[in-house]
Amino acid sequence: MKKLLSFATLWVALSLHAQQQPVDYINPLIGTSNFGATHPGAIAPRGMLSISPFNVAFDTTGVKAPLEKDSRWLSNPYVNENKFFTGLTHVNLSGVGCPELGVIIAMPTTGKLEVNHLKYGSTYQKEVAKAGYYSNFLTKYHIKTEATATTRAGITRYHFPKGEANLLINLGLGLTNEKGAMLKFVSPTEVEGMRMVGTFCYNSPELAYPVYFVAKVNKVAPSYGVWHTPEKHQGVEAQWMWYNGETRLKEQFAREVVGDSIGAYFRYKFDKEEVVELKVGISYVSIANARENLEKEIGNRTFDEVYAATRQTWNDALRATVEGGTDDQKTIFYTALYHALIHPNLLNDVNGDYPESKTNKIGKNHQRYTVFSLWDTYRNYHQLLTLLYPEQQLQMVRTMLDIYKESGWLPKWELNSTETFTMVGDPASIVLADTYLRGLTDFDIQTAYEAMLKGANTLENNPIRPGVKEYWKLGYLSVDGGVRGPVSTTQEYNAADFAIAQIAKKLGKKADYEKFNKQAYSYRKLFDKETHLLRPRHANGKWYAPFNPESGANFEENVGYIEGNAWQYVYMVTHDVKGMIKLMGGEKPFEKQLDHIFDSKQYDMANEPDIAYPYLYNFLKGKEWKTQQKVDQLINEYFQNKPAGLPGNEDTGVMSAWLIYGMAGFYPITPAEPNYTFTSPKFTKITLKRNPQYYPAGDLVIESNASPENIYIKNIFIDNKPYKSYFISHEALKNAKKIRFELGKR
Amino acid sequence: MKKLLSFATLWVALSLHAQQQPVDYINPLIGTSNFGATHPGAIAPRGMLSISPFNVAFDTTGVKAPLEKDSRWLSNPYVNENKFFTGLTHVNLSGVGCPELGVIIAMPTTGKLEVNHLKYGSTYQKEVAKAGYYSNFLTKYHIKTEATATTRAGITRYHFPKGEANLLINLGLGLTNEKGAMLKFVSPTEVEGMRMVGTFCYNSPELAYPVYFVAKVNKVAPSYGVWHTPEKHQGVEAQWMWYNGETRLKEQFAREVVGDSIGAYFRYKFDKEEVVELKVGISYVSIANARENLEKEIGNRTFDEVYAATRQTWNDALRATVEGGTDDQKTIFYTALYHALIHPNLLNDVNGDYPESKTNKIGKNHQRYTVFSLWDTYRNYHQLLTLLYPEQQLQMVRTMLDIYKESGWLPKWELNSTETFTMVGDPASIVLADTYLRGLTDFDIQTAYEAMLKGANTLENNPIRPGVKEYWKLGYLSVDGGVRGPVSTTQEYNAADFAIAQIAKKLGKKADYEKFNKQAYSYRKLFDKETHLLRPRHANGKWYAPFNPESGANFEENVGYIEGNAWQYVYMVTHDVKGMIKLMGGEKPFEKQLDHIFDSKQYDMANEPDIAYPYLYNFLKGKEWKTQQKVDQLINEYFQNKPAGLPGNEDTGVMSAWLIYGMAGFYPITPAEPNYTFTSPKFTKITLKRNPQYYPAGDLVIESNASPENIYIKNIFIDNKPYKSYFISHEALKNAKKIRFELGKR
Repeated sequence: MKKLLSFATLWVALSLHAQQQPVDYINPLIGTSNFGATHPGAIAPRGMLSISPFNVAFDTTGVKAPLEKDSRWLSNPYVNENKFFTGLTHVNLSGVGCPELGVIIAMPTTGKLEVNHLKYGSTYQKEVAKAGYYSNFLTKYHIKTEATATTRAGITRYHFPKGEANLLINLGLGLTNEKGAMLKFVSPTEVEGMRMVGTFCYNSPELAYPVYFVAKVNKVAPSYGVWHTPEKHQGVEAQWMWYNGETRLKEQFAREVVGDSIGAYFRYKFDKEEVVELKVGISYVSIANARENLEKEIGNRTFDEVYAATRQTWNDALRATVEGGTDDQKTIFYTALYHALIHPNLLNDVNGDYPESKTNKIGKNHQRYTVFSLWDTYRNYHQLLTLLYPEQQLQMVRTMLDIYKESGWLPKWELNSTETFTMVGDPASIVLADTYLRGLTDFDIQTAYEAMLKGANTLENNPIRPGVKEYWKLGYLSVDGGVRGPVSTTQEYNAADFAIAQIAKKLGKKADYEKFNKQAYSYRKLFDKETHLLRPRHANGKWYAPFNPESGANFEENVGYIEGNAWQYVYMVTHDVKGMIKLMGGEKPFEKQLDHIFDSKQYDMANEPDIAYPYLYNFLKGKEWKTQQKVDQLINEYFQNKPAGLPGNEDTGVMSAWLIYGMAGFYPITPAEPNYTFTSPKFTKITLKRNPQYYPAGDLVIESNASPENIYIKNIFIDNKPYKSYFISHEALKNAKKIRFELGKR
Repeated sequence: MKKLLSFATLWVALSLHAQQQPVDYINPLIGTSNFGATHPGAIAPRGMLSISPFNVAFDTTGVKAPLEKDSRWLSNPYVNENKFFTGLTHVNLSGVGCPELGVIIAMPTTGKLEVNHLKYGSTYQKEVAKAGYYSNFLTKYHIKTEATATTRAGITRYHFPKGEANLLINLGLGLTNEKGAMLKFVSPTEVEGMRMVGTFCYNSPELAYPVYFVAKVNKVAPSYGVWHTPEKHQGVEAQWMWYNGETRLKEQFAREVVGDSIGAYFRYKFDKEEVVELKVGISYVSIANARENLEKEIGNRTFDEVYAATRQTWNDALRATVEGGTDDQKTIFYTALYHALIHPNLLNDVNGDYPESKTNKIGKNHQRYTVFSLWDTYRNYHQLLTLLYPEQQLQMVRTMLDIYKESGWLPKWELNSTETFTMVGDPASIVLADTYLRGLTDFDIQTAYEAMLKGANTLENNPIRPGVKEYWKLGYLSVDGGVRGPVSTTQEYNAADFAIAQIAKKLGKKADYEKFNKQAYSYRKLFDKETHLLRPRHANGKWYAPFNPESGANFEENVGYIEGNAWQYVYMVTHDVKGMIKLMGGEKPFEKQLDHIFDSKQYDMANEPDIAYPYLYNFLKGKEWKTQQKVDQLINEYFQNKPAGLPGNEDTGVMSAWLIYGMAGFYPITPAEPNYTFTSPKFTKITLKRNPQYYPAGDLVIESNASPENIYIKNIFIDNKPYKSYFISHEALKNAKKIRFELGKR
């Protein structure tokens, strides 16, 4: 009997293992430490709603360097090493660099009603994070919480012990720095309202906007209502206001309440353990739409039904599968793909309504995307979508053109139809060109081209390219022109001009091609032969002095650069590596400086400007092994199956895209140049499931004898034919069905 | 020719004079100084909306004793001697003692947009205040403003000069101490929203509630939107918030905005003088109802049409006309009647919706009243309505019973379906009894009686009669019982018990009658033979010491009394004047003390407890002339045709009711005792237009040879028969058609 049981157990274990799907490898906790800024919450692919634990608000007294939201610049609702849980948020950004959203926070408690999060917060254990699912156990209250989500709605579930139980919806607390909310009970089990958000990265305060919600509990509470804690009144009248600044409980209040610090409460008294479910729908258009989103996406479905469906959706969404490699390698790979499917996310409601950019109108579109962090994503992320999710990439490009039509300008860092003007450059042009040149042409290229030219050629009042007048005149932005980071911004404009030149060529616009192609290399005027770096320069041509190449890393203010220093920007010229080699005085000094950057730890894996550096060795004949070595080292060092398993800010999929390519064996080295360069893959088999509508050759299989030792490329075979180059055009990759790498230890 | 013109001018002047209607005598500026607390704004009879100039918010730097809303306890949106106008409010209380409402403030300006009222405020001239109409001229902007109103909606009109013109709707500024608002543009000419109000007299903060509005301009503005000035953010992140605390202009923003300091702006640029009209509807139920109120009451009517109709409504509402007397006398009389028709006001929307008390439900009633300041109004005001506006009085009584049914208790100081628990006593019982005993019996007397008994007999957790347990036990509230003003509160409970006793008798409830009739005189236990005053007493029977009868006037804290001192309360025993005479040791000492109160200036004309004192001489045979003298003196001293022409707080019609009776020649001396006592009238003919449905005898005409000298009654004739008493029952007065006073100089 005992033996039989053992066999049975073994069989169950084996069969479970056999049933392990790609989705089951996803570990949403990756990136939740080390400022990865992802959150471990429940979300559906490209979901507008997500339900994340919120643990960044606590009393910081006596805490050294707290990761508390208001005590520093902190951009995520959850930090893995924090311990004080104050609820589950319903709208969140993941992997961004500025605090925003993180609102509509549900919190279960027991005992007396307490609405101050500093008092009601709890430590927790038994944290479970899966694709579309999050759970923990609140030690203070002995409550198990669970969350799952659809695109625009979510369910949380609370396992209350016997006794007094409270469910709070806190509209005061939030990650955003915006304040102000409204709520109204429409029945004893349903509350509707809104919360003001906006000013992402401390920009565009005048565009702050509401996120609407409808929330329903599945059990009538004997006591429910609204709490409101007003600001403390100052002045003469305060003496008569015995209630000054105190929380008011508006029991069963059924009209609107507004305020900076308000919330809804449901108070139960259970004579046994009970489960309460809270269903929430959101919308950026209206309360009515939030209600419709909730009804259409969840309706009467149970928590388990919703989770099962979302899990399946996630599994289907993972269009790459891997074989070989360790479980940890699979985990970081699938989680990277998961993270790449968070943002951009849908903005439209189920009925197609979405807030337009600038117009204040409601547009209609059943696939309106948002969260375009384009300074980050133009480098590798959109190329990944073009390959694996072409229909999504096309729809994102169309969204970008709609934004242009609505607001008059292409997006730069777009969030919920507001332009936040975060970071520099003209990245949208690069994405449009890259997408078109890689063969996704089913969008309005004429409008796209018009938009690119407008951004490039509007000399005054140009929100996309400030300083562009001087840029066209001098070829660079001077330190005198008032534009932040004149060197790096010059490089960004060059990269965009290169992209515009390529698309002009494709469209047969010869004069434009020549103009932009010439300008695309104007960064060379900033090359300082003395330091072999790009150096800030005055309008009169004099070099800026004194010049310290090291300054500017880690967000330090720097006269020439934005988010980075001269080392991290000098080789950000992937469209002109040969030109840079020439400037450096040949391949040797180029290689030497590249080695120096890595050896002296000037390379920042977490920062976008130098993200392609490891692949630059592929431009040096005979040195390609260094690309393979560096990429392998960087993956091993920075990408791991643990909360701190991202090198830093995920940047809406860019770090994950870098990892996916690095593990798959190729990288889209030059934005707007439809090619890739190779490195060694990390799995014995990688299947890229390509949409046959756009990729008639179907799936691309990458095979190899990858192992921890076998990291160097010996031979490459494409569709069984030897391939001699370390570069491949997108067209060739598109037609290929199989790439085989022969790898070795040296 | 010249002569002809003169004749024509004369003719016009005469004919205009001939056309002068009662309504034209109304001077809404009366009471707007000397803390009368009325406002001069446009309002319809018992209107839910009123449009008052708002001039109580200004920079107080260097201003001695400013009448500024936040620098002191100030309960009105307008003070006549103030000079700094910051807009026209759309919901206001008139003649109350606490700051509340005074919100939804429209303000026209010219030039650059400025949304800070301290900067955009203006001095003004050419103030015109009429029944249903207000106008002034803003000296800073050369803008004429005008306002008129219906019951639940209003129009303001702005005569802008050529150039830049702005129309603001400020939802931040307000008289109320509540904050928080929401607004949303629904079209370029229409904005909807709400403003939180509540906590009248610094009570019941948990009941704070929204007032909703819809506002429409009649001209599309080329620029419009929402402004929002957030609170200044404190802490680490403030360093990145370059916009910290600064006003944001949300141009054409079409979603909801919430905040403490928000408003809507319309910006015009006129190439000639232009008039802009702003139509506003309000509701305490919903935005939809506010819109319906606006549509149904104003719709497409013009300003002039609305004003003409409201003026006519006012004229029709004045159910007393006077002849003889000076224009000033007519003015104070008609204005008193006008003020008596402000509160209680309607609360229900045109569709009958109103917020119920306590239940959080929406009730249905086409005549739901609100603003019941019953500690004030039980004394004389509701008696006036019973006589002149019986159908309104009945509906108010029915509203009071509905409040009882909704909330479980009769109202005490009800405001917009919230009980504010302002002042003391059980005044609703007195109003119910008085109304019934004066013959208005068409209400549910059984429920009324049940409600009275509940208030009187509930010994624990009784919000209406705190301390009632001790009161029944000892006959008085002791200084040890924790109830504020134990002496005055004992007197109030006595007055209510007297009322309950009378109604019990009427209903044949003998035991109740005996119980309450006995208790109604229990104040006598507080009569201190030493001082001949009512004196605070300990539970053990000992007198409270030291005892200073003077303390307690002018809101000074006093151990025995609420709002008044021992002198102002001692004779507040109109149901037991004979008992008090006995306690005092006879008519002589009673008279001597009454004289002393007047002579030593202890009599406070502005305070309710002693409001009937002048009529007490009528209880002293041969001394009735003193009543006539005192009333005449008090009218002359305190009631005048000027802003300071009320003795103090109007108290929602009580001062005006006192004046109307005083000028008409009779007074309802004892609440819940259906009788009156006489004094000399001030006009040669006063016609009281009585509703024949309730007063089959029709109009009551009061004739006399009144003059400034003829103030003493020589003879009284009722329906031409000599009448010997200075008292008359309500029944006799009801049946009378004419009362004629023969007056003399002595």
